[in-house]
Amino acid sequence: MIDQSTSNKARLLISCSDQPGIVASISEYLFNHGANIIQSDQYSTDPEGGMFFMRIEFALPEFEERFHSVREDFSAIAERFHIDWRLESERRTKKMAIFVSKEDHCLLELLWRWRSGELQVDIPLVISNHPDLREIVESYHIPFYHIPVTKETKAEAEAQAEKLIKEHKADFIVLARYMQILSSDFVDTFEHRIINIHHSFLPAFIGANPYKKAFDRGVKLIGATAHYVTDDLDEGPIIEQEVLRVNHRYSTEELRVAGRNVEKIALARAVNWHVNDEVLVHKNKTIVFN
Amino acid sequence: MIDQSTSNKARLLISCSDQPGIVASISEYLFNHGANIIQSDQYSTDPEGGMFFMRIEFALPEFEERFHSVREDFSAIAERFHIDWRLESERRTKKMAIFVSKEDHCLLELLWRWRSGELQVDIPLVISNHPDLREIVESYHIPFYHIPVTKETKAEAEAQAEKLIKEHKADFIVLARYMQILSSDFVDTFEHRIINIHHSFLPAFIGANPYKKAFDRGVKLIGATAHYVTDDLDEGPIIEQEVLRVNHRYSTEELRVAGRNVEKIALARAVNWHVNDEVLVHKNKTIVFN
Amino acid sequence: MIDQSTSNKARLLISCSDQPGIVASISEYLFNHGANIIQSDQYSTDPEGGMFFMRIEFALPEFEERFHSVREDFSAIAERFHIDWRLESERRTKKMAIFVSKEDHCLLELLWRWRSGELQVDIPLVISNHPDLREIVESYHIPFYHIPVTKETKAEAEAQAEKLIKEHKADFIVLARYMQILSSDFVDTFEHRIINIHHSFLPAFIGANPYKKAFDRGVKLIGATAHYVTDDLDEGPIIEQEVLRVNHRYSTEELRVAGRNVEKIALARAVNWHVNDEVLVHKNKTIVFN
Amino acid sequence: MIDQSTSNKARLLISCSDQPGIVASISEYLFNHGANIIQSDQYSTDPEGGMFFMRIEFALPEFEERFHSVREDFSAIAERFHIDWRLESERRTKKMAIFVSKEDHCLLELLWRWRSGELQVDIPLVISNHPDLREIVESYHIPFYHIPVTKETKAEAEAQAEKLIKEHKADFIVLARYMQILSSDFVDTFEHRIINIHHSFLPAFIGANPYKKAFDRGVKLIGATAHYVTDDLDEGPIIEQEVLRVNHRYSTEELRVAGRNVEKIALARAVNWHVNDEVLVHKNKTIVFN
Repeated sequence: MIDQSTSNKARLLISCSDQPGIVASISEYLFNHGANIIQSDQYSTDPEGGMFFMRIEFALPEFEERFHSVREDFSAIAERFHIDWRLESERRTKKMAIFVSKEDHCLLELLWRWRSGELQVDIPLVISNHPDLREIVESYHIPFYHIPVTKETKAEAEAQAEKLIKEHKADFIVLARYMQILSSDFVDTFEHRIINIHHSFLPAFIGANPYKKAFDRGVKLIGATAHYVTDDLDEGPIIEQEVLRVNHRYSTEELRVAGRNVEKIALARAVNWHVNDEVLVHKNKTIVFN
Repeated sequence: MIDQSTSNKARLLISCSDQPGIVASISEYLFNHGANIIQSDQYSTDPEGGMFFMRIEFALPEFEERFHSVREDFSAIAERFHIDWRLESERRTKKMAIFVSKEDHCLLELLWRWRSGELQVDIPLVISNHPDLREIVESYHIPFYHIPVTKETKAEAEAQAEKLIKEHKADFIVLARYMQILSSDFVDTFEHRIINIHHSFLPAFIGANPYKKAFDRGVKLIGATAHYVTDDLDEGPIIEQEVLRVNHRYSTEELRVAGRNVEKIALARAVNWHVNDEVLVHKNKTIVFN
Repeated sequence: MIDQSTSNKARLLISCSDQPGIVASISEYLFNHGANIIQSDQYSTDPEGGMFFMRIEFALPEFEERFHSVREDFSAIAERFHIDWRLESERRTKKMAIFVSKEDHCLLELLWRWRSGELQVDIPLVISNHPDLREIVESYHIPFYHIPVTKETKAEAEAQAEKLIKEHKADFIVLARYMQILSSDFVDTFEHRIINIHHSFLPAFIGANPYKKAFDRGVKLIGATAHYVTDDLDEGPIIEQEVLRVNHRYSTEELRVAGRNVEKIALARAVNWHVNDEVLVHKNKTIVFN
Repeated sequence: MIDQSTSNKARLLISCSDQPGIVASISEYLFNHGANIIQSDQYSTDPEGGMFFMRIEFALPEFEERFHSVREDFSAIAERFHIDWRLESERRTKKMAIFVSKEDHCLLELLWRWRSGELQVDIPLVISNHPDLREIVESYHIPFYHIPVTKETKAEAEAQAEKLIKEHKADFIVLARYMQILSSDFVDTFEHRIINIHHSFLPAFIGANPYKKAFDRGVKLIGATAHYVTDDLDEGPIIEQEVLRVNHRYSTEELRVAGRNVEKIALARAVNWHVNDEVLVHKNKTIVFN
């Protein structure tokens, strides 16, 4: 795995109205700052007047000295083209908070990928509405906070979670089979920074008990969907989906057991793309550059 | 491919309440009639008092002489166990009517598999509410009937179709992207004998324009679903589903084009299983023995 | 998950020359002993004189009293049809030894499936030629034995491993990315009871460094193969294979990282099928009844 | 589908040593010529001194007047960076020759995709070493040439084929299950312009009878590989691969029948990418930009 702390790579992400000269201006700009473009992806919703999205990964020799000037000087271009942008240094490792309930498969997949270096994040904390997974989490030397949630204490519990997230400076939140619906306020605070795994192939089987519904409907494939959380339950921008073949012999319980393996894979992929700044959100859809 | 006309194979399909001794009685029965079991599949919804389903494929030496006595004598066992059953000889090739509109990909896939011997059916007729595909169908020496359908003529058109299907002795109907909704009466006449291909991964995107809906939702996989037609639109028992990975670059039209390749494959598989008597229907689900 | 200790289920596995009356005799036999067949699968290599394979899962009321007489009385049928057979009670949980080296992904997948109840085995011991994974294994309260292997000590190391396996009464061995080639003697001792995961889609890329070879060849899919170990390296009967789409952007190292996710899934499925007595071996191929 | 004859789109493909400033220079160049970049993909084998590959799709207003000057003026940049390049106008439809033998599934898939507008090529001729598929081909109003090949007449047959291809100005050749090995001379004449479909998941089962070999080895997935043809049989750069799950019940013949459906899909995808200039070849590997 890469030693991120000495990486000289950065990523520029851009959204704006499509207009002539954007690519030329940006690539000239980067060249003038001594950046060497490693990878570049772009997408236009409509080449004749739609939205334009771009992700450029570049290497920057003498990173320390130059990175800040690259960032500061970019505002002139951004203004000219009315660009919505962000610049991310690979040296700054993102901090990921994980929310769990009782099921451990998604949590363990993330922890394993993190420890193996496949998922390059810091995990400053895990929050759960149940105490069950404390031992596992702490065995990885990660702080575990048990915040029970009832109808009455929900607002307070969310306030407590938000406080912890801010104290630990987490950049984004992964709901790794967290079985509580978050309030609009909480969701808005972390817009496009909460990733959920829904245990169905959305938009099929929205809501509770998707495996029961899949069993009742007699589907021949089950799925899982990783998406950003919005106010509309299970309606947020989809990042990744995966499916698995099943048949009439699967009981609801067996669908649930088999489904765990697609849930954890779809979630892990989505988290990885988010961490690598490969996902842009536009309205209710994602552009995934990978 | 097998020469079906001299095949000595038959298939026995069974549904009943689960009860001790069924398998023993049936296998003893077949053994006493000189049948050699080639393949046998069974499924119980609940071993302690649910439904029991079985498909037995067997070879019968001296087929001509014995087949009818196998059929006739079976009624004693069937009565004893209250079995719902059918016995199919591989010698009798099923007759398949195809309904189409303007799109040809599902039709052509079926015709190709039929001509190559992969799909062992007779195709006595193709019915369409549009004249467009006449030339293709007739190039295969298959009668093509153009029956236009309007709101006013629908009942009459269905009556005409039903008459043709009966004249041609078709056993079942495949809706190969037929863009008309059939009436309850018509559907009831051919219960579990009409196979439709829906251009989405049901139950996602029920109804019209599924690719437009898939585009709007930003899904990362598109699908197709082959199912038996019932009174409830897109709610019939699912036989087969298939999916295909897509991404943000696909327009609605490109989803539609890509989707044709999963539609034709899912439909062709489902038709093949139906033809080989591998599908049993129980309530709103299928048991597929393959 | 099922409480296996009070399960009243058993599985009968059968291999013999195909001959009339086998199915009838066995199902009558089971019926006479009061067994209720839950699932039955069979396969003939050639209905006219090939090999016949069968797996029957049945429930047995009054299990304690009857199971031994079912087993003992079966020998008469077995002799009559020259059947190679085994009868497995679900009450007896199989014991699985795991061999690892330094990579932990396959080990952790097995441990996770085991702890979640998805994989119903006991794990009496883990053996490794490296000390690295001791802590993980012992955190699951499973004995870990470090047996270093060098060219000189190989025979001795294998003898030590064999002794431990027998002391712990392990029924079968899983090589969860164990990077040592076992001797013919060792392999013969545990015939069809050692499952290996090879990190390629066999027979492509036999031998060492398959990801390097896959990179050099420029394949568009990578794979993994779970198989029983035989004397011929990477040539044993294949139980399961899985693949993953890749592209030109993957370095050898990235193929290796991505490949871990197919390795662990293919291995876990194969182990599960072995544990559930769903795999029969015939010559160099497997019959998998599932 | 697009009306290509009035399209104002073009594609620039580039291979060279990686060096700073390439992207900036090319995007500035295109901007100065009034081109609007629609999509851009790039890949470096090694950002610090490897090979650099790029595909840029752009729209050019006033196409007629400008396209030639875009092409001519590019040579200055190409010289400066030692770029190996080609510029393709979407207005010029590529001409595809198809070689077949007796099996029709790949041929029909290509013809269907061509007629439906999914595959935007002209098909000036089909060449076959057997007369069997003449009627089908001619029903599409495509000239069919029967050129029998024996060991003795091979050189002569290839000369005749080459003459026809040149007369019909075909740009590239698709071997749609053409069961003859082409000579080195013929292959060299059409370097990276002959696409073959091999009926296995290469490099597994190189050479003849891959389905027989797959049956004997007992694989659980079968595959197909579309690749550019080189002197080394089945060793050319892989463009696309696809697989299909099978099991012990498949005979060699059934593997062959099932395999046709992956062959035709893998081939059709590869041909489509080639036609859209999405494939670059470097040594024995492809870079597929899609």
